[in-house]
Amino acid sequence: MRRFEWGYGGFSAKRGGVLVCGGLSGVMEASARGAKLAGGLTIGILPSRNTRDANEYIDIPIATGMDISRNFIIACTCDAFIAIDGAYGTLTEMAYALQLGKKVIGLESWNIDGVIIASSPEEAVDLVFQGI
Amino acid sequence: MRRFEWGYGGFSAKRGGVLVCGGLSGVMEASARGAKLAGGLTIGILPSRNTRDANEYIDIPIATGMDISRNFIIACTCDAFIAIDGAYGTLTEMAYALQLGKKVIGLESWNIDGVIIASSPEEAVDLVFQGI
Amino acid sequence: MRRFEWGYGGFSAKRGGVLVCGGLSGVMEASARGAKLAGGLTIGILPSRNTRDANEYIDIPIATGMDISRNFIIACTCDAFIAIDGAYGTLTEMAYALQLGKKVIGLESWNIDGVIIASSPEEAVDLVFQGI
Amino acid sequence: MRRFEWGYGGFSAKRGGVLVCGGLSGVMEASARGAKLAGGLTIGILPSRNTRDANEYIDIPIATGMDISRNFIIACTCDAFIAIDGAYGTLTEMAYALQLGKKVIGLESWNIDGVIIASSPEEAVDLVFQGI
Repeated sequence: MRRFEWGYGGFSAKRGGVLVCGGLSGVMEASARGAKLAGGLTIGILPSRNTRDANEYIDIPIATGMDISRNFIIACTCDAFIAIDGAYGTLTEMAYALQLGKKVIGLESWNIDGVIIASSPEEAVDLVFQGI
Repeated sequence: MRRFEWGYGGFSAKRGGVLVCGGLSGVMEASARGAKLAGGLTIGILPSRNTRDANEYIDIPIATGMDISRNFIIACTCDAFIAIDGAYGTLTEMAYALQLGKKVIGLESWNIDGVIIASSPEEAVDLVFQGI
Repeated sequence: MRRFEWGYGGFSAKRGGVLVCGGLSGVMEASARGAKLAGGLTIGILPSRNTRDANEYIDIPIATGMDISRNFIIACTCDAFIAIDGAYGTLTEMAYALQLGKKVIGLESWNIDGVIIASSPEEAVDLVFQGI
Repeated sequence: MRRFEWGYGGFSAKRGGVLVCGGLSGVMEASARGAKLAGGLTIGILPSRNTRDANEYIDIPIATGMDISRNFIIACTCDAFIAIDGAYGTLTEMAYALQLGKKVIGLESWNIDGVIIASSPEEAVDLVFQGI
């Protein structure tokens, strides 16, 4: 697990942020682990019907049964979105969040129009909390 | 607000239950208020895009943007379902919860096949926690 | 396959109706077969990601990937709803259709408030087309 | 209405393609108009509850009530995706279609990894039908 992956969950939790993620493995698990280590609260919005599919660092599992269309729910529910991943699922979340007018920060992720690029987890979290 | 409406939120919270509801007004608000008064945690799974549409007793608003098809998410996310309402939306939740094999308790609600009838909020909550 | 199951698809198609159903097996397949035999058009709104999951009588498969929350889409898309089944999934569709103010006809199905009971497929289809 | 916008609907329809789009105005309407002028069939997967929200060139309106999370349904239902638009909603559709392994063609649209760029509607349609 790289520092990038869990870092932003942790730095955000230290400032009172609640982590909302997809609830599964990979970056979703790493960021939730970071948030829990820092004493934060974590929400996992799952693609399956079953709350037991959440990773072990999720406090509040939401089982949608809606496959990856649940990415829209993540975008609706968050106040700001930090992306750290290069896959297509992340891109749908970024695009939905931008369409909804949310602040979107990219950490080694898709560099599309409207995304604010950060170079470290600390900077990403700083950018999220600026002006809130 | 009738005792029936907030009672089961409160009695459940006292036993460590987390309240999951639709997050809006009426029974959803009453049960969330009951849960908060008893020191519980409340989740509101909203039909709209906007977390600000949650009633004031919701701790964790989930904005789905999916209209009343979010009723399926409520059924997937809960461990057991207490119904106290006679409207069609409640009926979709009960039917989904039954289809998913969840325990469904009815308090002055639809008396369909598979529903366990309770006559008070205390009894409804007792029935939920039995055998868990 | 019983007459009840394919009959209403066929009688509706003969009057120009388009069949909207869940696209899978059982009553969904029987009614679509009835509609095709009568020269009608059939739409299947599938729970899975894959249009190939539709039964062979579906002309237009819509793959939602949204599990049984796709029942709401069926209720939104139809002009009137004929139910012929006693399972919980059908009940969610009936309740959604009633909530949306659609005409709901029951053929050996759930007898809930608001449903118009028919005793044959012909009568069910007659009831649908009355006043349209 | 630019040639780009209606052209691919028309060229696809001439080759037997069925147009699946979001069913509303702008490019969705233009492409549906092109498809109808060429004698094709058009499906509109709407964000609202109401089939009447479809533009006048839609033969089969599907009312989802699921807001822009219906973009996933478009990606699931199509065999290939032609994008002609620079907005975020289109980007979610492209990313979903790529995640599902569909062929994605871009006409003056987002140039993201995996997209095949076309320079005319004819070329876009040729690319779609190649190898099918």
